[in-house]
Amino acid sequence: MFSLNKGEGPRLLITGGNHGNELEGPLVARRIIEWLPKAQTCGNVIVLPVLNPLALQAWSRNTPLDGLNLNRVFPGRADGSVTERIADAVSRVLLPMADTIFDLHSFGPTWKCPPAATTHPIADPDLMANTVRMAEAFKLPLTLLWQHNDTAGMFDIVVQDQGKIFVCAEFGGGSVGADNLAIYEAGVRNALIALGLLGGKAEYPTFREQKSGQTLETDPSDEVKSPATGIFEPRCSVLDEVKQGDVIGVLHPLESLTAESVAIRAPSTSIVIGIASAAHVEINKAVAVVARPVKK
Amino acid sequence: MFSLNKGEGPRLLITGGNHGNELEGPLVARRIIEWLPKAQTCGNVIVLPVLNPLALQAWSRNTPLDGLNLNRVFPGRADGSVTERIADAVSRVLLPMADTIFDLHSFGPTWKCPPAATTHPIADPDLMANTVRMAEAFKLPLTLLWQHNDTAGMFDIVVQDQGKIFVCAEFGGGSVGADNLAIYEAGVRNALIALGLLGGKAEYPTFREQKSGQTLETDPSDEVKSPATGIFEPRCSVLDEVKQGDVIGVLHPLESLTAESVAIRAPSTSIVIGIASAAHVEINKAVAVVARPVKK
Repeated sequence: MFSLNKGEGPRLLITGGNHGNELEGPLVARRIIEWLPKAQTCGNVIVLPVLNPLALQAWSRNTPLDGLNLNRVFPGRADGSVTERIADAVSRVLLPMADTIFDLHSFGPTWKCPPAATTHPIADPDLMANTVRMAEAFKLPLTLLWQHNDTAGMFDIVVQDQGKIFVCAEFGGGSVGADNLAIYEAGVRNALIALGLLGGKAEYPTFREQKSGQTLETDPSDEVKSPATGIFEPRCSVLDEVKQGDVIGVLHPLESLTAESVAIRAPSTSIVIGIASAAHVEINKAVAVVARPVKK
Repeated sequence: MFSLNKGEGPRLLITGGNHGNELEGPLVARRIIEWLPKAQTCGNVIVLPVLNPLALQAWSRNTPLDGLNLNRVFPGRADGSVTERIADAVSRVLLPMADTIFDLHSFGPTWKCPPAATTHPIADPDLMANTVRMAEAFKLPLTLLWQHNDTAGMFDIVVQDQGKIFVCAEFGGGSVGADNLAIYEAGVRNALIALGLLGGKAEYPTFREQKSGQTLETDPSDEVKSPATGIFEPRCSVLDEVKQGDVIGVLHPLESLTAESVAIRAPSTSIVIGIASAAHVEINKAVAVVARPVKK
């Protein structure tokens, strides 16, 4: 763990390795530790590159010892299993030392998604507005308001219950190469500048030949599911705009080699924010996620 | 299997799914079948999108039933196990029907490598020159002469022993998304044009903002190995030129959380043609492959 106190100012906690098979966050966190001591001008920054070292060592989403997903057991239990104890230590020891939390995730090798700063919808409108503003300060290609139905026990919830700001960074596209790791790192640096912890000018990094960002929202109805088990062939790319009914991919069934391939169509006029790449998929599992501009 | 005979002309066999966990080849093969009937002007083309359906259904490199790698059992055996029988059928039934073979592979989700048409070195200088010319006709960013020491039983060998031309296409970068599938498909189309099976003009597709190709060679000494088990952080991208000693990546050891990270350096002034992306790697396993211009 890295901690640097330069007196009065914002108090930030950066965490990676919440899920042990998402290696980009730990790498970006370590890179920040390399340059932060020279760059930080005030405040207190704590960086914990690997929240769940047991899962990371096993290259596994969940902790092998107890099979638990760290991001579903918050706030944890001091007398619980190892995963619950990690959550408890984070909640009781680290959280009181910070007012803003960045948790660095990634999307895994068989999905493409753009670099994104995400939040779930929050009941408190002021906290929601401040959280979206913080997420947009990453200046990543996508700021995403992500409504899903499986948030009990997430790190977000315990942070937001204390009225603090939580931003989750995501990125997918194989495992992430050097060029895209640099985009991810630039997003975190932009957010540090916005918080006033660093000097310098925040700038949109170049992604798919553009330097820009947009704020979108998605809910469970925006998940496009596979009609059969088979191989998914993507026919569009992330950030593509699609019209309702456009073919976004083709599912080639595997049960029978003579089964007809099935076109998979966009459920609405929307923007593709995640798409499975040439990959095996199970019936009823998501092959794409679309999103729409936030309704004001 | 698709077969289209338009009379006199070149006889081509296109195969995918030699390895069941390389899904890009089967997808590109199926796409070619969609447009070839209208486009083909002469000759005979056979397309077999999935050489090893059992391995493909299991999303496995080798055949689950007998554990064999199809691409190491050629020419196969008619009375052998299932994998050996597939190789035998290909060798005895399909090969006599073609003079040129394109076998479509890919590199898997934790490597980045550019779209490439590859061949191993061939003893016969005329066949070697014709094979390299055919590989270059794909007009992919990379034509690669790939010397490695584990070629016994490969599909290539049985084809080349008959004096026929064999080109292996490779591509890596996560699973391959829609934009890169299109590059792969364009490469095969270019080769069909060069063979005279199609009209149209062959063009370099755009990859990493360039429309160009280069022919390089690599041998086992060009493999960069990991000094420890850990997480590999790439610090360069495919097709980057590196000087001897340049840092191409960093290995973060996993045995101990306090172990120092290790810089991994380019073994020679060369061009990076393959690099692991943010991924777990084992000690002594390759994390990068470099190559050099072909010596005349």
